Amino acid sequence: MTPNSSYSIRAVGFVRSRLTSRAHAPKQGSEGAPEAWVDIDPAFAEALDGIATGQGLILVTWLHQGRRDVLQVHPRDDPEKRLKGVFAARSPDRPNPIGLHIVRVLEIAESVRLRVEPLEALDGTPVIDIKPILSGSVGG
Amino acid sequence: MTPNSSYSIRAVGFVRSRLTSRAHAPKQGSEGAPEAWVDIDPAFAEALDGIATGQGLILVTWLHQGRRDVLQVHPRDDPEKRLKGVFAARSPDRPNPIGLHIVRVLEIAESVRLRVEPLEALDGTPVIDIKPILSGSVGG
Repeated sequence: MTPNSSYSIRAVGFVRSRLTSRAHAPKQGSEGAPEAWVDIDPAFAEALDGIATGQGLILVTWLHQGRRDVLQVHPRDDPEKRLKGVFAARSPDRPNPIGLHIVRVLEIAESVRLRVEPLEALDGTPVIDIKPILSGSVGG
Repeated sequence: MTPNSSYSIRAVGFVRSRLTSRAHAPKQGSEGAPEAWVDIDPAFAEALDGIATGQGLILVTWLHQGRRDVLQVHPRDDPEKRLKGVFAARSPDRPNPIGLHIVRVLEIAESVRLRVEPLEALDGTPVIDIKPILSGSVGG
C-alpha cells in the first residue's frame, strides 16, 4: 500500500441539464432521467472524433455535490434499509465521487456539444471522461 | 464552460497482479486477463461492507501509465486503423486516464483484500472507486 497517493483530474466538459437539485434527480438514468447537453471544452474537440449520433457512450462524471467523507449509506436513501458500504452502493457520496452514465447520443452540435439521454447528472456536473460502449466490456 | 476546473482524487487501493508490462497486458478484461488481487487501504474497510464473494463489481482505476496529452489514437494500437479521438476509443491514453473493469469477486481476505477476475490492469495500478453492478445501469 502506498498511502496518500493522489492525482489531479480536470473537467473536460460540463453537463447542461434541467435537473438542478439532487433531491429531484432520478437515482439512475434508467429511472426517468431527461436528455441533457454535454458541452466539451473546445481544447478537447479532437478527442471526440469518431463519435456519431445514435451511438452509446459511457459518460464519466465528477459528482461534485457528493460527500467524500461518507463510507456507509442507507441504499437509495431509505432509512429502513441496513447501512451498506459505499463501494457496495451507487450513492454519489463516496471517497472519489465518480459517476458512470450510459447514454445515447441524440445530436452533435458545434463539434463539441453532445445532446444525450438519459442523464441523471445535475446541471453543472463536470464531465471527466467519455468512453464508447464495447461489447464484452463495461456497458457492453 | 469553467476552464481549468480540477479535482483531487486519491487511491483507495492498488491492484496486485502478475501483469507488469503494458505491452503484455490484454486490452480488455474479456481478452484473457488473469485474476488479480485488489488491496484496499484499511482506512476504507467500512466502505466494502456488503460486497460478497461471487458478486460482480465495476472497478474504477487510474491508468497511471496512460499519456494524458494524447487526444487521438490508432484503435487497438493498429497503425493501419484510422486515427480516432480518445473519447471514441478505450485507450489508456486520455486526458484523465480512468479505467473501467467489470470483474467478479472470487475471494475476500483480511476484510480488505479482494481476489477478482478478469482484470487487465497492471500490477500497481491505483484503484479509485468500486461500484456494484446494477441491472439497467452501467454494467447491468
